[in-house]
Amino acid sequence: MSLIAFHEAIPGYLEDRGDQLWLRIAVNGVQPETDYARIEPDNEEYLVAMSAEGHQGSWCFYTALIQKSQHIEQTEYLFKLVWPQASCWIGAAGVEPHMPRNIHMYRFSHDRRLPTWSGAQIFYQVFPERFAQGDTRLKPQQDEYRYLDRNDIVIKEWGDEPDWRSGGFEFFGGDLIGVYNRLGYLNDQLGVTALYLNPVFESQSSHKYDTVDYFNVDRHFGGNQALQQLIEGIHLRGMRIVLDAVINHTSLMHPWFQAALAGDERQRAKYVFGPNNVYSSWKDQDSLPTLDFANPDVVAEMITGSDSVIRHWLQPPYSIDGWRMDVIHMIGEGRGAKNNAQYLRTLRNVIKSENSEALLLGEHFFEASNWLQGDQEDCAMNYFGFGHPVRAFLAGLDIALHPIQLNAAQFARWLREARARVSFDHQLLQFNQLDSHDTPRFLSMLKGDRPLLEVAIGFLMTYIGTPCLYYGTEIGMIGDQDPGCRRCFPWDESQWDSELLDFCKRWIGYRKAFQALSAGALIDLYAEQDTMVFARVSEHQQCLIVFNRGAACDLVFDLNLPGSTAPWQKIEAHGDLTMAGSQCAVVVPDRSVQLWSRQL
Amino acid sequence: MSLIAFHEAIPGYLEDRGDQLWLRIAVNGVQPETDYARIEPDNEEYLVAMSAEGHQGSWCFYTALIQKSQHIEQTEYLFKLVWPQASCWIGAAGVEPHMPRNIHMYRFSHDRRLPTWSGAQIFYQVFPERFAQGDTRLKPQQDEYRYLDRNDIVIKEWGDEPDWRSGGFEFFGGDLIGVYNRLGYLNDQLGVTALYLNPVFESQSSHKYDTVDYFNVDRHFGGNQALQQLIEGIHLRGMRIVLDAVINHTSLMHPWFQAALAGDERQRAKYVFGPNNVYSSWKDQDSLPTLDFANPDVVAEMITGSDSVIRHWLQPPYSIDGWRMDVIHMIGEGRGAKNNAQYLRTLRNVIKSENSEALLLGEHFFEASNWLQGDQEDCAMNYFGFGHPVRAFLAGLDIALHPIQLNAAQFARWLREARARVSFDHQLLQFNQLDSHDTPRFLSMLKGDRPLLEVAIGFLMTYIGTPCLYYGTEIGMIGDQDPGCRRCFPWDESQWDSELLDFCKRWIGYRKAFQALSAGALIDLYAEQDTMVFARVSEHQQCLIVFNRGAACDLVFDLNLPGSTAPWQKIEAHGDLTMAGSQCAVVVPDRSVQLWSRQL
Repeated sequence: MSLIAFHEAIPGYLEDRGDQLWLRIAVNGVQPETDYARIEPDNEEYLVAMSAEGHQGSWCFYTALIQKSQHIEQTEYLFKLVWPQASCWIGAAGVEPHMPRNIHMYRFSHDRRLPTWSGAQIFYQVFPERFAQGDTRLKPQQDEYRYLDRNDIVIKEWGDEPDWRSGGFEFFGGDLIGVYNRLGYLNDQLGVTALYLNPVFESQSSHKYDTVDYFNVDRHFGGNQALQQLIEGIHLRGMRIVLDAVINHTSLMHPWFQAALAGDERQRAKYVFGPNNVYSSWKDQDSLPTLDFANPDVVAEMITGSDSVIRHWLQPPYSIDGWRMDVIHMIGEGRGAKNNAQYLRTLRNVIKSENSEALLLGEHFFEASNWLQGDQEDCAMNYFGFGHPVRAFLAGLDIALHPIQLNAAQFARWLREARARVSFDHQLLQFNQLDSHDTPRFLSMLKGDRPLLEVAIGFLMTYIGTPCLYYGTEIGMIGDQDPGCRRCFPWDESQWDSELLDFCKRWIGYRKAFQALSAGALIDLYAEQDTMVFARVSEHQQCLIVFNRGAACDLVFDLNLPGSTAPWQKIEAHGDLTMAGSQCAVVVPDRSVQLWSRQL
Repeated sequence: MSLIAFHEAIPGYLEDRGDQLWLRIAVNGVQPETDYARIEPDNEEYLVAMSAEGHQGSWCFYTALIQKSQHIEQTEYLFKLVWPQASCWIGAAGVEPHMPRNIHMYRFSHDRRLPTWSGAQIFYQVFPERFAQGDTRLKPQQDEYRYLDRNDIVIKEWGDEPDWRSGGFEFFGGDLIGVYNRLGYLNDQLGVTALYLNPVFESQSSHKYDTVDYFNVDRHFGGNQALQQLIEGIHLRGMRIVLDAVINHTSLMHPWFQAALAGDERQRAKYVFGPNNVYSSWKDQDSLPTLDFANPDVVAEMITGSDSVIRHWLQPPYSIDGWRMDVIHMIGEGRGAKNNAQYLRTLRNVIKSENSEALLLGEHFFEASNWLQGDQEDCAMNYFGFGHPVRAFLAGLDIALHPIQLNAAQFARWLREARARVSFDHQLLQFNQLDSHDTPRFLSMLKGDRPLLEVAIGFLMTYIGTPCLYYGTEIGMIGDQDPGCRRCFPWDESQWDSELLDFCKRWIGYRKAFQALSAGALIDLYAEQDTMVFARVSEHQQCLIVFNRGAACDLVFDLNLPGSTAPWQKIEAHGDLTMAGSQCAVVVPDRSVQLWSRQL
């Protein structure tokens, strides 16, 4: 594919000028007779002729000043290039021979309350019960309580194998003091800069997705004091922390629900009861009764009240940096997410009123595009636009662990079309993970293929969006579906894959060293069979990434980017890169990822 | 392309069962291990395993019963097929190697207030001032009035050339009595069954898009009596009629606006005035002040009131069959379409409360998908999914008359992706036109290439959606942009292209004779270079359409449809069709369209 035109919402190509946007495109090769920017203020088309403004090599530049939309939360635009005998359109999914559908318009969100810090982080997901033990006295004791008054809790030794039969009520003793103690490892050694913690609030389970008290950190994790200490440690290092809010439902054991069962009408009204005391619950699991956000009490307690759950932890002394919202798409009227968007707009406004740079991250196992149009989330757990395609391409598995066959062209198109549905700002913030507490570990999905895991991690650190490593990925932890993926972190270094750890450190380092990797546009350059090449491009820097899931090959592809003809510097690669005109030749080893860069 | 699976919302493949939908798919070739229907009640995925239910030749059938969505106005679903080594998905845009984006989910609208009659019609668009003169005394007289108090109106003889300088205020004398007089020609001779009339209400212009009185048909068209007579004539013949509602704005000369200018505060509040008496108007044309639907008076007068404009003409004695809503996407708060969807949902409910089978047709020059998700329009002027692609493919021009180059594969994909955004019910109702009062005539865009016009008309009559001929297309009228496309219909038959008229009659006849053409699913079978082949498939009938914009060729393609192996009957074609296994061979003449059919 030869790049014929380029625009992304990066400096040099877009400027926010109040009621207007200044836009620039670069066009390669035979120059069009006319270039238009197309907008739809008021849902009606306006074509704005663009002005020629300079050139560089085979690239010419055109600019336009457009009005922002008044009727929706974002300005949507396209570009049209017209030659005497032909025309084409440039949209968010690339060059199209005719006007793209509205889903492929470029979009610019008017709500600028975006966490600009977030895209520059390397996140690390911690499942607190399994990451590190800081104070052995905090560990639950055998017979301390019965889980949901139904099951004896199971107490295990650190490193024992988790058992699915007792998954949610077996305990190994991880706590937040343990996390605090390992900040040096995480930040100084590994290089991660932000933590996302699975739920920490009072709960009878080990995963704590069934909250009993939203205002107290579980005593077995060290209580509020341990969280406060952890956050102080994190912030002292300039790191960030995001907590997990589970407000779609409470635990069956939450005092509200217990009172509701006992007949307290005010508490009953927070849930949705039908005849015979049957109540709505998350996916019909009776331990997780769903809250009714049509009840203003629920909205106030969770979101809008002056000491709501959402506000409480964003405020001092905690001042967390953002919320990851569990099953955010289901939040609604107890049973039914009918007015979900309305509640989430309220949620956004409350979070941003506490801290306009706080992160609002939504959990979605599938497509989140509708939640990322500027009025709701900052970003989503990007299973849809990252985790699923990467797993499919590298491991040949889909999210249901069914086989899936995909070549690089299909993979690149999947990624591109997922990106195209959200604005560039949202693309940068999308929360990319190879795996999580809800999936098998990536190395296990790869059946232990270490080189392919490196390819995956290299891709994670160079792709657009915010990378997040699931705890232990860096040392080669394996495990299948929950609870296999929730094993204890082995702090005995002899059990670590230290080469993998070194690889992770290096690529985390590249991510931090090259601003184009965290803030640059993504340009597809080549995608065939097993190999994909793309560039990350910012105003003053370009990175080139070549990754290959298959056999070694010599690759030649067209590489003509606007902005520079400076030679490429090898950052990590086994062979050479040679340019002949706009043709780039690289040596591509078996299952490999390589990185090149240049300054403009 | 070999068809590997088939599902559409046609009888035999979908049944509406109250809270549930019964779905069937047909799968060709190697049978999957598992088939799933995928739904998202409450935005969360549920996979429903399908049951095998019989087979036929190389096709096997699978069924599932799914719950309808509770949280949105339509149920969205996909199918997943899983083999031991691979999987694929079936969505509204066809087979995809991974899970399609939500825009490509099949969708079924819960609101069943759909005009089932509409898809079976052959519409004919009449521009009343130029179609036929019934009573010469009605024609405006020179100096009868000045247009907008600015211009002398221009009176011309029937057949004179329109002039763009006096476009809106020159008159040739067409009227509704003329239309009434020509019902025999339209219905008995040509075979059309429904009329869409450009605006007829009191207005100073010849196009009447600037309404002065919404309750009176223009006196020069014969007044309300002429409309009533016309409608009675139409309904006596079993025909239908749709009128044009222009409620986004009024004429500058509308009494409300004149009173507003004179300082009447109540009338002023219906418009949007800024400082210095500056007011919002449609595309800044000061003759068309836009109404403010945030003012409940405007909503009541236009939509909700007991004798609102919208209700008035749906009620006896007029009982029109539907409304075409001018610039429907812009209706809003005078300047800005912010709450457009809210007003249109109200509009839908009002129209359907008068007559649940009344048609709500929206004008959109571009994509209307967002308005066709079950809660707003029944259908749109389908420029986006029909007019634009057909013009691009056959005439090499886009809507701005810029050159556009497109091969059949790109053309077919454009059509398919446009269809995929709306439910099958909406696809059937989409209002397809080659041209209109707002575009050059198709024959002129083709630079007079008559064979290609036949190809276009053949396509119009066989493609999914409701065909509408613009007046005079059938006799070979030519003309460029407005006013060239608004010439007087020449009633002197010596000026007609009678071969073309015969062609139109035949293909209108096919459209009526073959139920699969008006109600069947569309299956893409072949699309390369200049040639496209598709099938229309209903429960008991299949049609095969081969059309070619280029040179003659012998074509071989895969043709294996579920349901029948009966031989194909020639309806209109120059050569033979031969089947060898699933390979179909046809002779394709230069610039041609052919039709074959079979009963199941």
